[in-house]
Amino acid sequence: MVQTGIAAAPGIVIGKAVVRQEKQLVVERKKIDSGETARETDRFRHAVGLAASELVGIKEKVRQELSEEEARIFEAHLLVLQDPEFVGAIEFLINQELLNAEAALTDVRDQYVQLFASMDNEYMRERASDLQDVSNRLLKKLLGVKDDSAMEDGEPVVLVVHDLTPSDTAQLDPARIKAFVTNVGGRTSHSAIMARSLEIPAVVGLSDITERVTSGTLVIVDGLEGTVHIDPDEAVIATYEAKKQAYEQQKALWAKLVHEKTVTRDGYHVELVANIGSPHDASQAMENGAEGIGLFRTEFLYMGKDRFPTEEEQFAAYKAIAQTMGSERPVIIRTLDIGGDKELPYLPLPKEQNPFLGYRAIRMCLDRADLFKTQLRAILRASEYGDIKIMYPMIATIGELRKANEFLAECKEELQREGISYRQELEVGIMIEVPAAVMIADQLAREVDFFSIGTNDLIQYTMAADRMNEHVSHLYDPFHPAVLRMIHHVIKAAAQEGKWVGMCGEMAGEPHAIPILLGLGLQEFSMSATSILQARHLLAQLDAGQLRELAMHVLTLESGAEIKAYVKEHVLDVLQR
Amino acid sequence: MVQTGIAAAPGIVIGKAVVRQEKQLVVERKKIDSGETARETDRFRHAVGLAASELVGIKEKVRQELSEEEARIFEAHLLVLQDPEFVGAIEFLINQELLNAEAALTDVRDQYVQLFASMDNEYMRERASDLQDVSNRLLKKLLGVKDDSAMEDGEPVVLVVHDLTPSDTAQLDPARIKAFVTNVGGRTSHSAIMARSLEIPAVVGLSDITERVTSGTLVIVDGLEGTVHIDPDEAVIATYEAKKQAYEQQKALWAKLVHEKTVTRDGYHVELVANIGSPHDASQAMENGAEGIGLFRTEFLYMGKDRFPTEEEQFAAYKAIAQTMGSERPVIIRTLDIGGDKELPYLPLPKEQNPFLGYRAIRMCLDRADLFKTQLRAILRASEYGDIKIMYPMIATIGELRKANEFLAECKEELQREGISYRQELEVGIMIEVPAAVMIADQLAREVDFFSIGTNDLIQYTMAADRMNEHVSHLYDPFHPAVLRMIHHVIKAAAQEGKWVGMCGEMAGEPHAIPILLGLGLQEFSMSATSILQARHLLAQLDAGQLRELAMHVLTLESGAEIKAYVKEHVLDVLQR
Repeated sequence: MVQTGIAAAPGIVIGKAVVRQEKQLVVERKKIDSGETARETDRFRHAVGLAASELVGIKEKVRQELSEEEARIFEAHLLVLQDPEFVGAIEFLINQELLNAEAALTDVRDQYVQLFASMDNEYMRERASDLQDVSNRLLKKLLGVKDDSAMEDGEPVVLVVHDLTPSDTAQLDPARIKAFVTNVGGRTSHSAIMARSLEIPAVVGLSDITERVTSGTLVIVDGLEGTVHIDPDEAVIATYEAKKQAYEQQKALWAKLVHEKTVTRDGYHVELVANIGSPHDASQAMENGAEGIGLFRTEFLYMGKDRFPTEEEQFAAYKAIAQTMGSERPVIIRTLDIGGDKELPYLPLPKEQNPFLGYRAIRMCLDRADLFKTQLRAILRASEYGDIKIMYPMIATIGELRKANEFLAECKEELQREGISYRQELEVGIMIEVPAAVMIADQLAREVDFFSIGTNDLIQYTMAADRMNEHVSHLYDPFHPAVLRMIHHVIKAAAQEGKWVGMCGEMAGEPHAIPILLGLGLQEFSMSATSILQARHLLAQLDAGQLRELAMHVLTLESGAEIKAYVKEHVLDVLQR
Repeated sequence: MVQTGIAAAPGIVIGKAVVRQEKQLVVERKKIDSGETARETDRFRHAVGLAASELVGIKEKVRQELSEEEARIFEAHLLVLQDPEFVGAIEFLINQELLNAEAALTDVRDQYVQLFASMDNEYMRERASDLQDVSNRLLKKLLGVKDDSAMEDGEPVVLVVHDLTPSDTAQLDPARIKAFVTNVGGRTSHSAIMARSLEIPAVVGLSDITERVTSGTLVIVDGLEGTVHIDPDEAVIATYEAKKQAYEQQKALWAKLVHEKTVTRDGYHVELVANIGSPHDASQAMENGAEGIGLFRTEFLYMGKDRFPTEEEQFAAYKAIAQTMGSERPVIIRTLDIGGDKELPYLPLPKEQNPFLGYRAIRMCLDRADLFKTQLRAILRASEYGDIKIMYPMIATIGELRKANEFLAECKEELQREGISYRQELEVGIMIEVPAAVMIADQLAREVDFFSIGTNDLIQYTMAADRMNEHVSHLYDPFHPAVLRMIHHVIKAAAQEGKWVGMCGEMAGEPHAIPILLGLGLQEFSMSATSILQARHLLAQLDAGQLRELAMHVLTLESGAEIKAYVKEHVLDVLQR
């Protein structure tokens, strides 16, 4: 039997299933004597201590193995344990209401979760999910329940589970868990992203896979296609053994390309660079053969803090990345892109009806000389240590670009006066992610060094569809002719002015998109580090000259589905043969 | 002294100010005896009766003098008075908690308002404001406070007030109140819209005008420029007397154009049509010389109800409009555009993070064959009675257009089978309001009869700026070169296929925009009825041939401000001389 879900992390695994049912944690609710409050408070504090030290361990592990960004989730969990309001409320219930610790904990948890979850605010909803995750950890400690994820040793298995929290995913032992499949989740859910970083094949969104599989059953997980075969026959197993081998050969082949330049079959060089979120990610990018950093999202520097990062803190981070990448590899630093769905606890922004059409990124930075100039100064100072470039997000008018550049000029002057040096030939570019910027790309091109097309937002605005909204996400289509025509328009306008164009949306790493983008003349492809080698392998087989014609042809087709099918038939399938 | 605000309704008035301070309604809170509950309940019910009959009167007056749409506000107020939960809660407090009627009313009001206002939902927030308005009316009745708006007779005055509720505005006596000015409000606030309908000059958003003016002071209200002169000297008065006269001559001149066709100086005919929201508005459009209806928003048929309108109800409304306009004047009916910021109480839609990028208009209709086909059948049946055309909103892909047309074909077949006739040559067009539709206008043009550019939404998506959000509304600029280039692109693409293009956003009636739009080749201008004569007068003085060059030139300019200034200098100022 085959079940189809969403391919969350690539790879093929054939192995025995272990179905993990969520243990129902049964909480007894009882009144305690006033003489027992001290003992109950102690039990609670002991649980907090256990949970905290466990979290510190997980956080460090994640920081080492994954990234600074992922580690911040557990930083947030630790903060909950240190929150005097949360802890205080529980101890109050124990001491004043004479409740046992378990009941006090679940009462406070339920109150908080309900409060946060009802707020129409992504940040608060995430706090609700953090609180839930931490409270369950505490409850297990109180009840003496062994954590499921610390599974006993044994043969490698495929984990079958309703859902995985970030905690669960981070604690998976890749030596033991060869793959996982879940009922819920999507390609961009947190556990899917972590699975890709951990390189554990995964299929998610399988609805009721926990009902269909029993522990011990043989399953095949195809993280490339998003399918799961349950109790397959010999023939299916043989097919997948072969597919698995082919995939592994392919991966070995890709691995050989780590130190290669990216050159198409007809000798055209394009740059394959990485999107990163932290200095640690830069090393991972190097290991995956990135020729540079196409997008450093600086938001991580601002998150998990209770104040803005100082110039020194930022300088240290930018310098570290520049040094990791060396002087030959460009590092594009995007200035702060906060607002929209990203908020900072210490930066109160207005509550908005449509945050994606709201006060975010450069719009806010241009009003906040203090924090914008702090960042620009830090970037300028770090530019001495590598090939750093600056990129402004969300530019919609030429006035915004000029105003941002005025701030930059002020910072340069200040540094000069202070006798601090910076890279004189530092390039300045902008994200093209607002439709208005596409339409005036000719005007913008005259005043920048480069463009980087941010497809994630550009597609949302072009289609007027929030991709996080399941009712309209079908309209979020990178292959829609309107999107491709916009990309074409931007590249043409830049070429007229002799400027180069890159792309830093997820689309840049999509195998169906790469031939079209190459044909349209895209010069830089920025993607998640783990996609780089595959893209390099693909590009090496493509003929840029020939693809020009293909690209022009697909612009005349009428739908994304048609265009994707055309690329598959005329490019990808041909290479397979 | 001059104060500058927002021009809300045109005209110039020189007159004495009457400053209306909001009367603080002082509510005494007291416990009543259990023997007094019947008397207190009676007092309350009497107040409800007085308020209800007053509201019925206001509603009828507004329906006659303004429109069906404005009248619905008071319909909603009446519903509050009939709401058993609201009334029941107040009577409960009187009878069980032994509160006096005033205190019971304000307690319940505060609870409801707080509840509704805290919901992140435009519909509920509007209910909060309805409740507030109704409760205040009730409270005045209980306290025996005479309604301010029923002002004593006397000489005509300029009303100076902090804010006007819709109730206040509807009750203004145009014979007495020659103009009004307020501290708060914007051009699209409800009272501004009503002021334009009532043709009472108004300037809003003056911050603290109630502090700066005292009753009896002479003021000049310039609703054309959005300025208020306080205690002006002789010279200023003379200037404004002249300006007022010039404006009145101009209006008289415009009035002569009611039965004229719209023809430019070089003999080019364009269509000046009206945006309407109800059958009643169609008569107003005729009185203002509309050559047809460019946009009939059908939402009013769905609002203020507890269920979907039937096919018969819709048919009656569409037929009435068609008959009012006659067979010579086109009536474009836009299919239901609900969702976004518009909700229906009986159509639960998913709560969305970014409703403007969400599940609305055609996106929802294509999933709801039941309600979409009911509307299409009603339109088809009414098409026998005039030159009715159908228009689909929010089209972003060619697949959506084709699917909508399939529903239409099904409806035609059904009607044919049932022996019901409809206009065979009925034209079908789409709104161009999503950037994607602009980019694929060539493909869409092959499969429609016309386009109508919906600038209100198109600008929002193009600039990625919610115009209701004060922090980014500066980016909402109809004159931004990106917007004008999109319009140009759409008109060119349609012309290639021999299709005509109209515009039904507010931009179409803007004097600075009209010369550019004419130069770009726009064929139909749809605007609020009261703007038509002015536009006809302007167009009669313009030379379409000459403006082609001007339009091409402004497309190369770099900002909206520059473009507007260019049109002013090279067109509008030249005509003034």
